[in-house]
Amino acid sequence: MVTIAVIAPGAMGSAVAALLHGNGARILTVLAGRSAATIARARDAGMEGVDEADLAGADFVLSIVPPAEATALATRLAPILAAAARKPVYVDCNALNVATKRGVAGVIAQTGAPFIDAAIIGAPPRPGGKGPRIYVSGDDLASSVALRELGLDIRPVEGGVGAAAALKMSYAGINKGLTALAAAMVLAAGRAGAAEALHAELAESEPELLARFARVLPDMVPKAYRWVAEMDEIAGFLEGDDGGRLMFDGAGRLYARLAAEGDGDEIARLRAFAAAAERP
Amino acid sequence: MVTIAVIAPGAMGSAVAALLHGNGARILTVLAGRSAATIARARDAGMEGVDEADLAGADFVLSIVPPAEATALATRLAPILAAAARKPVYVDCNALNVATKRGVAGVIAQTGAPFIDAAIIGAPPRPGGKGPRIYVSGDDLASSVALRELGLDIRPVEGGVGAAAALKMSYAGINKGLTALAAAMVLAAGRAGAAEALHAELAESEPELLARFARVLPDMVPKAYRWVAEMDEIAGFLEGDDGGRLMFDGAGRLYARLAAEGDGDEIARLRAFAAAAERP
Repeated sequence: MVTIAVIAPGAMGSAVAALLHGNGARILTVLAGRSAATIARARDAGMEGVDEADLAGADFVLSIVPPAEATALATRLAPILAAAARKPVYVDCNALNVATKRGVAGVIAQTGAPFIDAAIIGAPPRPGGKGPRIYVSGDDLASSVALRELGLDIRPVEGGVGAAAALKMSYAGINKGLTALAAAMVLAAGRAGAAEALHAELAESEPELLARFARVLPDMVPKAYRWVAEMDEIAGFLEGDDGGRLMFDGAGRLYARLAAEGDGDEIARLRAFAAAAERP
Repeated sequence: MVTIAVIAPGAMGSAVAALLHGNGARILTVLAGRSAATIARARDAGMEGVDEADLAGADFVLSIVPPAEATALATRLAPILAAAARKPVYVDCNALNVATKRGVAGVIAQTGAPFIDAAIIGAPPRPGGKGPRIYVSGDDLASSVALRELGLDIRPVEGGVGAAAALKMSYAGINKGLTALAAAMVLAAGRAGAAEALHAELAESEPELLARFARVLPDMVPKAYRWVAEMDEIAGFLEGDDGGRLMFDGAGRLYARLAAEGDGDEIARLRAFAAAAERP
């Protein structure tokens, strides 16, 4: 039986774990200090809570955490991996810029464990549904066949460690950057009393974008806090492109404001725009 | 016969003039100091070159200039309008933020001429084709019926002077902001060797966006220089939204860099990505 440590049991981590568990893998995770809701979600996904020291017994360690925590997790696990006689393959699945991803790879390299740069694109897998694409790059891809056999949609990308990260950054930059643009412009149109006119014009000339906004604006609200760090990573990925960097500095600041707002007036206006867009 | 001054005979101005002329209007413009190509384009559109002082004899003055020139044009024409016994309706059609548009309205108000805030959304009209939407707002809309009868797709927006401008800013922010995002991310993916992987992922999960990029990236290249000032206007429109402002400061800086690059390496890479996207 393949044993896979999945850290942490968030929305994506637990859904990936449930898929792997359903296909016969044993799933370890760490539950110390987690909320009752998270512990329940982990149990539902077939995840076993163990001490961090016991993660070294797994065949794979999948790091699926908020971007700002990825380097800290690798650093915390490094002594455990270094001490292990048989090393798990460390798979960093996080939305990190190329430099950050290479930094994580460097931390893991010192432990002697194989490393895979992975990037998850798409929504968490649902029972019976199609899972996200998991792009992988690096020199240690041979073992990823085992993950594919366990039901993950594994797709190798050429270019070594950093290639999967670059793909994720550029794809997420387009998607989450567009959502930030939509939020900024819908709110600004609303402040100027032009939200209805914007809606009507989009319905006529950009129906696909309007349908997208109806979907992604409400979907963004609970994730905005998480996207702040991801916007920072994308800005870092754009090193050397001052204009592009500024765009993502701005998107990060916008998401931070919306996250801090909770269920305030701006969120209500975004939801109202989306709801109007869904009407035929 | 309705007489309409159209300033200036650029791509949009001359196309609008040709439509109006074809539907029976007399079209005036100012050709002093313009290139031979512009003069030829104006003549083809049925535009008559006159002195600025003679524009006051028109029924309408349509200002269709780069955003950075809109206030200067109004200021230059103000004494001529103030001196006219019968005032033309001044229609500012430019992509200006609400504050700038109100500033132009203030300049014109002092001359006693009626003022319409107009916003052009869509490509220039082509012979036999559908023209752009021309949204209009303000207190002097009654006269715009004459423009509709001459074939313009005039659409009133409630909210007074600034409402049409706000619609244009928010719509252009989405469209041209998205093009800037696409350019930044395609170039960054290319620098990291991930352009092909990005292309493949978009083809699978975002075919509509990919098709759009294939169209808008090459289309943007000759316009990037003009969009720099428009990004400034949109940033100004986002006053009070620091994150949104930064996004458009960044987009403006990106367009300025691409405009300065001429036909360099980055432009070639954007064209190559677009060309690959058009292949089946």
